[in-house]
Amino acid sequence: VVPAGDDCAVIRDGAGECQVLKTDAIVESVHFEPGSPPAKVGRKAIARCLSDMAAMAATPRNALVTLAIPKTAAVAWVRGFYRGAIAIASEFGVEIVGGETVSTPSNIVVSVAMTGRVARRRMVTRSGGRAGDSILVTGRLGGSIRGHHFSFTPRIREAHWLAQNFKPTAMMDISDGLAADLPRLANASGTGWHIDNAAVPRSKGCGVREALSDGEDYELLFALHPDKVEECCRAWLTEFPEVPLTVIGALTRQKGREFDYDGYDHFKQSR
Amino acid sequence: VVPAGDDCAVIRDGAGECQVLKTDAIVESVHFEPGSPPAKVGRKAIARCLSDMAAMAATPRNALVTLAIPKTAAVAWVRGFYRGAIAIASEFGVEIVGGETVSTPSNIVVSVAMTGRVARRRMVTRSGGRAGDSILVTGRLGGSIRGHHFSFTPRIREAHWLAQNFKPTAMMDISDGLAADLPRLANASGTGWHIDNAAVPRSKGCGVREALSDGEDYELLFALHPDKVEECCRAWLTEFPEVPLTVIGALTRQKGREFDYDGYDHFKQSR
Repeated sequence: VVPAGDDCAVIRDGAGECQVLKTDAIVESVHFEPGSPPAKVGRKAIARCLSDMAAMAATPRNALVTLAIPKTAAVAWVRGFYRGAIAIASEFGVEIVGGETVSTPSNIVVSVAMTGRVARRRMVTRSGGRAGDSILVTGRLGGSIRGHHFSFTPRIREAHWLAQNFKPTAMMDISDGLAADLPRLANASGTGWHIDNAAVPRSKGCGVREALSDGEDYELLFALHPDKVEECCRAWLTEFPEVPLTVIGALTRQKGREFDYDGYDHFKQSR
Repeated sequence: VVPAGDDCAVIRDGAGECQVLKTDAIVESVHFEPGSPPAKVGRKAIARCLSDMAAMAATPRNALVTLAIPKTAAVAWVRGFYRGAIAIASEFGVEIVGGETVSTPSNIVVSVAMTGRVARRRMVTRSGGRAGDSILVTGRLGGSIRGHHFSFTPRIREAHWLAQNFKPTAMMDISDGLAADLPRLANASGTGWHIDNAAVPRSKGCGVREALSDGEDYELLFALHPDKVEECCRAWLTEFPEVPLTVIGALTRQKGREFDYDGYDHFKQSR
């Protein structure tokens, strides 16, 4: 139903209903450290998929977990991992229904596959943005490495509420940093974009550069018809008083704008 | 719907219909070598999931592929991988709808998530075997490392035909060797088992030990009510003349029998 490159794959499945599929992998020494508490690693592995489900306004249902770990890994690590994974899965109504553990000679790799559902008319993709739409972001950006990348709350509830009440024209989650992800949303929508750097909500201790480039924010980035913005922000304040919602700019007709800062690219050779 | 430990996870999904979910990972230097042709690695990654779908008599539908590869990996490797993966997926009517590529500092890990469907009444699990059922196996066992582990044909067609015409009481695919997998089927069914070692169909150049222990055969192992065996074998000959079908023993009342040879255990410390 949606072209490759969106947050999840979407498959038509009966009248008006879609199945949503997502896989996401995290790698030791890239997404977590050898010494990271395994429960936090398990939480993060599941929460990242939940964040992608949120990006489509989908309801997650089932997950399968694949653990590739060295034979020398302690059983306690696997137990801790599943404790963290199951806790957050339960919190969002997701059942871990299977998966497997295989041995690898080196770094731990965790891959999570998640299924979800969404009514076709509720689904939000990256590609529906129009020039003139306002660009909004939830939460605060930057500095995730100090702990947020383990403890973030996937914006499932917020995404459902938005899709039901204000239907964003385009939405995604910010995983590689606003500077990498906003251009993706704009490109998918066939628009340009303009943001006010000073308006970008920053985590404590972060400058603009960190807010734009650090990545792993797992906040929602979405486009909304400008006529809906004021009412949306007002209703949001009542519904989610603890989560900031900020207008940071607008989609524009002119394309090809560049950020001053880069987001995270997995295959860039030097950083 | 089925307890953990079966070939796939199964989730009820509407009247009489089940969704089947499977993830399977292969690791460089474990399931393939650094020098293995990438198209063969891609084929194998998909074919292993197809084999698990066959084990439940399910029809595979969609797949997501996660590739964890070093930044130094050649683009040609990824292209070759997908060429092999897409070819076999297409052959079995499976669409690769998504996935992702992440960087890992070390060995390549490939994880495939696959969805499928099966009518509840057609589904075959590991756990329905009864004492007295005959044990049958498709194809020939052993020596897979010489090439079969890259070139095997997932037994989807055979499994569907069996489920439709003779409904095995229990079924699984042989991935870790008959010596490891038959006890799993018998345990899940709450039975013991007896096999005639000499009856086990062996690949060219393999002794009994190799046929029982080598693993990666990806053949179907199933239990059938003894009254159905003769007709099943006769009809099979007409339907699948190029694939041997062999009765190798029976499920028994007495449990706890041990094989003289081991199958493959990923987490055994010494082999």
